[in-house]
Amino acid sequence: MAARARPISEFAAIAQLQALFRQARSEVELGIGDDAALLKPAGRWLWTVDTAVEHVHFERAWLTLADLGWRSFHAAASDVSAMGGAPFAALSSVIFPPDFAAAELSQLARGQRAAARALGCAIVGGNLARGAELSITTTVVGTVKRPLLRSGARIGDELWLCGELGLAAAGLRLLQAGTRRATSSAARRALRAFRRPQAQLASGLELSRGAHAAIDISDGLTGDALHLAQASGVELLIDVAALTATLDPALLALAPSLGVSALELALYGGEDYALLAAGPKRARPPSARVIGTVAEGRGVWLRDGGKRRRAGRGFEHSSQRPVRKT
Amino acid sequence: MAARARPISEFAAIAQLQALFRQARSEVELGIGDDAALLKPAGRWLWTVDTAVEHVHFERAWLTLADLGWRSFHAAASDVSAMGGAPFAALSSVIFPPDFAAAELSQLARGQRAAARALGCAIVGGNLARGAELSITTTVVGTVKRPLLRSGARIGDELWLCGELGLAAAGLRLLQAGTRRATSSAARRALRAFRRPQAQLASGLELSRGAHAAIDISDGLTGDALHLAQASGVELLIDVAALTATLDPALLALAPSLGVSALELALYGGEDYALLAAGPKRARPPSARVIGTVAEGRGVWLRDGGKRRRAGRGFEHSSQRPVRKT
Repeated sequence: MAARARPISEFAAIAQLQALFRQARSEVELGIGDDAALLKPAGRWLWTVDTAVEHVHFERAWLTLADLGWRSFHAAASDVSAMGGAPFAALSSVIFPPDFAAAELSQLARGQRAAARALGCAIVGGNLARGAELSITTTVVGTVKRPLLRSGARIGDELWLCGELGLAAAGLRLLQAGTRRATSSAARRALRAFRRPQAQLASGLELSRGAHAAIDISDGLTGDALHLAQASGVELLIDVAALTATLDPALLALAPSLGVSALELALYGGEDYALLAAGPKRARPPSARVIGTVAEGRGVWLRDGGKRRRAGRGFEHSSQRPVRKT
Repeated sequence: MAARARPISEFAAIAQLQALFRQARSEVELGIGDDAALLKPAGRWLWTVDTAVEHVHFERAWLTLADLGWRSFHAAASDVSAMGGAPFAALSSVIFPPDFAAAELSQLARGQRAAARALGCAIVGGNLARGAELSITTTVVGTVKRPLLRSGARIGDELWLCGELGLAAAGLRLLQAGTRRATSSAARRALRAFRRPQAQLASGLELSRGAHAAIDISDGLTGDALHLAQASGVELLIDVAALTATLDPALLALAPSLGVSALELALYGGEDYALLAAGPKRARPPSARVIGTVAEGRGVWLRDGGKRRRAGRGFEHSSQRPVRKT
């Protein structure tokens, strides 16, 4: 990080962020600079908030501040995608430690801006506060025509995956083991999956046309699948062979060196921001891959060849594990 | 705080918050329980976010967790009031330390709920994450017909105050000096002003009918007045006698024992969430008290009898001082 550089001064920081985040959106009448942003709503809106906390969700040695800005923004936007919407505006609330420099805030903001632009979203305000450790809270609003709830899955639906599973968790394990620079293309892909995750915006919009239910997989496939199963009052049956067929070759190459199977990383890993959805075969969008079915019953089950077993919640995480969204 | 009580478990905490925060609002189609809240917008909306951080904005020994929930909620809602709007929905993102108990989260949430109800607002979702220190980030949306910007003050306008100045800052000083229980009615009022501030909802709505500009005074009168002066390109001239006439008798009684004048607390104190507004005499609402005028020039000035001096930014705060909203 920047060596003892300029500290953050109120006016300068706000002016800097105002310049960085300037972007026109027809739904935004007024962005940064007053007590609140002014919006012109129409239709139906989704609204979410997500927080990334240092030492819990990330270590600063693991990624650049621009990566962190990108990552935290996509994590928040992912909830809008999971409901079939398109994010259009965000507020960013940053708590920064005493030694945080103005140049560091700028690096973080550049990552947020890059993420926002990639998603067609404007950053229209926020808050800055000092604190003991760095955290970024991002609140996002998005438009939606036909919201995809967790509770809509129906018996007989296919179970769909949009995006990659396991690769970001592999990247996290590399980072936790001290790897900072990739020595193989597989490791490079895994580190990038952790540092630059992608909210599945296009898939979410595709799904919103015909899927019955969706959730984003930020916390591991089986854990988030259980939320969907419970909300819908159904059983989700994951086909292990079908899931395995979706796994990235880089993940298969890396997993043995991490002391864990690629399948375990896919089932329990989290950090990916892929989407899990349920819907009828005729409505399956091109980006969705079938990994199971929705059946009568309760809970999440794995079908492995002829056998069937209840899915666990995954390897036990430490008490440092983030708690979920309400 | 609760002695080693039940730790926070994901499902239980979310179910608890879902039950606590249940409230119907016509603009809210779907609250807590999915990836995002679903809203039905119409008209124009205000949107803001505010964060309260332990050891920066508060110490837990200073107030109950219910007070903290109340205080953090009103602080966020105040930005909507300052623009002439009415808050109707909020998301709450809490970072809590490892020893935080389920009962403590519940106490905090009850304070948030009481504040939300008092303001006619629903809490429709949020986020929970672990971290080293407690912080509460509240994002609020509100409806507005005629938004009051900081930039609208005109030469010849009256300068108005809605709400009390200085009393919360006096309460903060009492707490910083170790006072926890009031030994006089003046101290009781001051502690209450800090622990249970009131967003000036009714005044904001009144002001929105005819005022030209407004800002909330969370950071001290002269500091926030300077934001308004700069945004409007005018000079604000505060009449010291008129300002003194608005001061609460409890503040006048307390100030000497705090080693600071009541006027200083009013000018530089902050923490109050009163509103500063500018507008024509004919549009002055009943709750507004005249404390000065808007003139040609730049900056914030004090008129004290026949003399005139530039207003300072107040007593110097430590590096612990919160940084402002963008």
